[in-house]
Amino acid sequence: MNVEHGETIEIPTKGFSDVIDISREVERVVGMSGISEGTVCVTCIGSTASVTTLEYEPALVLDLQELLEGIASADMRSRHSETWGDDNGFSHLRAALMGPGITIPVSEGRPILGTWQQVVVVDHDNRPRSRKVRIQVSGE
Amino acid sequence: MNVEHGETIEIPTKGFSDVIDISREVERVVGMSGISEGTVCVTCIGSTASVTTLEYEPALVLDLQELLEGIASADMRSRHSETWGDDNGFSHLRAALMGPGITIPVSEGRPILGTWQQVVVVDHDNRPRSRKVRIQVSGE
Amino acid sequence: MNVEHGETIEIPTKGFSDVIDISREVERVVGMSGISEGTVCVTCIGSTASVTTLEYEPALVLDLQELLEGIASADMRSRHSETWGDDNGFSHLRAALMGPGITIPVSEGRPILGTWQQVVVVDHDNRPRSRKVRIQVSGE
Repeated sequence: MNVEHGETIEIPTKGFSDVIDISREVERVVGMSGISEGTVCVTCIGSTASVTTLEYEPALVLDLQELLEGIASADMRSRHSETWGDDNGFSHLRAALMGPGITIPVSEGRPILGTWQQVVVVDHDNRPRSRKVRIQVSGE
Repeated sequence: MNVEHGETIEIPTKGFSDVIDISREVERVVGMSGISEGTVCVTCIGSTASVTTLEYEPALVLDLQELLEGIASADMRSRHSETWGDDNGFSHLRAALMGPGITIPVSEGRPILGTWQQVVVVDHDNRPRSRKVRIQVSGE
Repeated sequence: MNVEHGETIEIPTKGFSDVIDISREVERVVGMSGISEGTVCVTCIGSTASVTTLEYEPALVLDLQELLEGIASADMRSRHSETWGDDNGFSHLRAALMGPGITIPVSEGRPILGTWQQVVVVDHDNRPRSRKVRIQVSGE
């Protein structure tokens, strides 16, 4: 019989596609839920951040930031930035492309991930922020 | 004890990565479900459309369309278009990259979204269509 | 009353964004679950593969591989490859961008997909592998 367990955590970020490993928090919330089989949905609240999985190591973090810079540069002109003056059009575009969150299956009380696969928040905004991340566990 | 509530809505779109804000429909279906805590999964049926979240304002919609035009142009040559003659290879590529849908946590009977974060369908196809969108709420 | 049914399947892949149609396996697992209304979450375990939907036909598979080659080339220099010597920085980047998995609504005992929409694993790694894919069905 399925039940729900959700928690909202808050993390400090530096922006410009800063990558934060939240795997331990996801594992902790799944453990707290008492749910053995099911799913965990992780989203970062807001329209300028994403959640994905990554082998969390410093070289790859820089590679990812460079890739995103190539797709939508922090220096790009955007109608959004010109209209609203907040200079973060690139942040919105990166976030829309990568999506706001992911869902990972849970088995034996743990998210099913590879050894070198971490759950990461990517904050694309153009300034340091405190970000709210929702971790929602569903299952039995 | 978790239950399900799903609805399929139909929306008119113009294609070429037309962006349609369906946040109110998502909120309505979550409200109808009577589910307080859980998740809502939103997908656009078909292989040439996506769902993501976006600050829905006209300047950013144009920025997103320009970004997608840079990634896979509507004028690009594609083996798919040349083989099948339907000229929408770019639509399939944009959709495969962005994915068919998203899942958003639900709390206190509402999807957990930021103030400037809307749920949008992006129809990448190369003609106006009527699109079926499935909104599936799970939880307790 | 919601229940869970999960299976892990194993598939051989060739790497370099090899695209494998797993729609029949997804339909089989949804059928086995006995779940009529709900969702199915499909993820490929590991940090160098993705799951998305695609019209699975050979011309479009080549188009997608060419698109990904343009975004993060198999020949690109990456700090990850230079640091760890495993030459698959591009694989990680493609996977982080596309995400590790998707969730599809289920109705009347079947995943809700278009006629020309298949569930596919895209293995971005730089060598043949045997991949574990988790198919998790939740619902009533």
